Amino acid sequence: MVGAGRLRGVSDQRVVALLGVGVVPADTPILRADDLGALRGDGIFESMHVRSGRAWLLDEHLGRMAQSAARMDLALPARDRLVELAGQVLAHWPTDVEGALRLVCTRGLEDAGGAVTVFATASAVGEGLKQARRDGIAVVTASLGFPAELRRSAPWLLGGAKTLSYAVNMASQRWAQSVGADDVLWVSADGYGLEAPTSTLVWLDDSTLCTVPVNRTGILAGTTARWLLDHAESLGWTTAERMITPTGLTRTSGAWLTSSIRGVAAVRTLDGAEMPFSAEHTGRIRDLLGFA
Amino acid sequence: MVGAGRLRGVSDQRVVALLGVGVVPADTPILRADDLGALRGDGIFESMHVRSGRAWLLDEHLGRMAQSAARMDLALPARDRLVELAGQVLAHWPTDVEGALRLVCTRGLEDAGGAVTVFATASAVGEGLKQARRDGIAVVTASLGFPAELRRSAPWLLGGAKTLSYAVNMASQRWAQSVGADDVLWVSADGYGLEAPTSTLVWLDDSTLCTVPVNRTGILAGTTARWLLDHAESLGWTTAERMITPTGLTRTSGAWLTSSIRGVAAVRTLDGAEMPFSAEHTGRIRDLLGFA
Repeated sequence: MVGAGRLRGVSDQRVVALLGVGVVPADTPILRADDLGALRGDGIFESMHVRSGRAWLLDEHLGRMAQSAARMDLALPARDRLVELAGQVLAHWPTDVEGALRLVCTRGLEDAGGAVTVFATASAVGEGLKQARRDGIAVVTASLGFPAELRRSAPWLLGGAKTLSYAVNMASQRWAQSVGADDVLWVSADGYGLEAPTSTLVWLDDSTLCTVPVNRTGILAGTTARWLLDHAESLGWTTAERMITPTGLTRTSGAWLTSSIRGVAAVRTLDGAEMPFSAEHTGRIRDLLGFA
Repeated sequence: MVGAGRLRGVSDQRVVALLGVGVVPADTPILRADDLGALRGDGIFESMHVRSGRAWLLDEHLGRMAQSAARMDLALPARDRLVELAGQVLAHWPTDVEGALRLVCTRGLEDAGGAVTVFATASAVGEGLKQARRDGIAVVTASLGFPAELRRSAPWLLGGAKTLSYAVNMASQRWAQSVGADDVLWVSADGYGLEAPTSTLVWLDDSTLCTVPVNRTGILAGTTARWLLDHAESLGWTTAERMITPTGLTRTSGAWLTSSIRGVAAVRTLDGAEMPFSAEHTGRIRDLLGFA
């Protein structure tokens, strides 16, 4: 697929399509100044890994997007229209390049009464993410300030919705970098590890692969973590949803942050202390998830 | 100023200008799909009241925008360039129409290395906001879940920065409407009133006009509230920054939510209970602030 698409206005390493329009040159502005996505981060998105020209776990991501839309009271278009949009982008994506497919749905124009704006992009996976897969990452904890179970009873805090309002997510990662780390593990006021700004916490306790319960905490339901746990039997592991503290994590057989594009990144240090690490476990998880 | 501007591609009741470009037709898309403002709500903004064709408290808003940029590590353009941009929009705004001027600065394109995107819009003030000024509003409390002073020690939570990531702010207001109210007062886990999703809490305690301390709580520094307190002497009131609970608010001489566009809205009920209210006080505040 390298060729026609790229030559007809599709810029190198990025493809953009608009719902109802199709593929447009990637440098075309697509959001108006009065789009609530531009003004308020008022919308939702999904990111998917593109391998051999196809979006991995597309169904699961579309399912989560529908759940985000419900929590945000957003009129997400029908699933087949989103599948078609994703297909338009992927038809122009070179099959030999690892990619990230994003689907974005904003609340639309400020005065449009709920008619959403939907677009999709494909772009290349950055070298930094690939390196994190190989080498693991240094993680520091940062408090979200509230108790682990608070968001269950506070729907206005949008627990479990993957919104476009990622300023705090990005600021958390910048803060991690400012203290010499790669990423953050958000913790609750009562001391539990919750999730990372763009990934899900999993850890191995003896031969049980664990993650944080979604409904109890209001964290985002990680599609990669869910798929991993659903297939952990093939690695000889049972699975469980548990609460865990940062100190508890240091006593496990290893911890990872999983996400759609970075895939799996071993937590090599936590708040500066070395974490249990197994190159073999990490490699087997990476292979099972299908990341290079 | 009704005339030339409107006829040359400036749509009715909305003017849009881009930094470095100038005024463009209001229905022109201006943000690319890979702009971090569109993808992550990663940017900052200010809203100002436009009266007689001029932006009220422009200097104060530009000062706050610079503070937001510092907290977000954003390379906001120089103040005179932003003033020029605002002037381009206002030159096309009819002087007889009450307006809202927005200045927006996003982190720019994903791969642009920090070159920001800046635009400005002017639009008409909605009837609902004007009605709230006249009639006051029903307010319900909603917890942010964390203690009042938490954000002092958690810079990654971006306390005091007016970011584009307003999904929770908007969800809080939708939640208020879903329970039959007009707006939310966010409260801390330890029971203090903090701020509203798009406005600042002020209240009258005998003859002392009070608001919530900014530095102690990490709330946004309200420009309208600040100006009001700085000029409260002309109403015969002293001023103070205090912490207060919702129960405490019911024992005051009245409470208001102040903001740039809605101006001042009297809190008529709080969680369904009638609040102390003085039409005279409310009118005097509104007049002092210069709202019709």
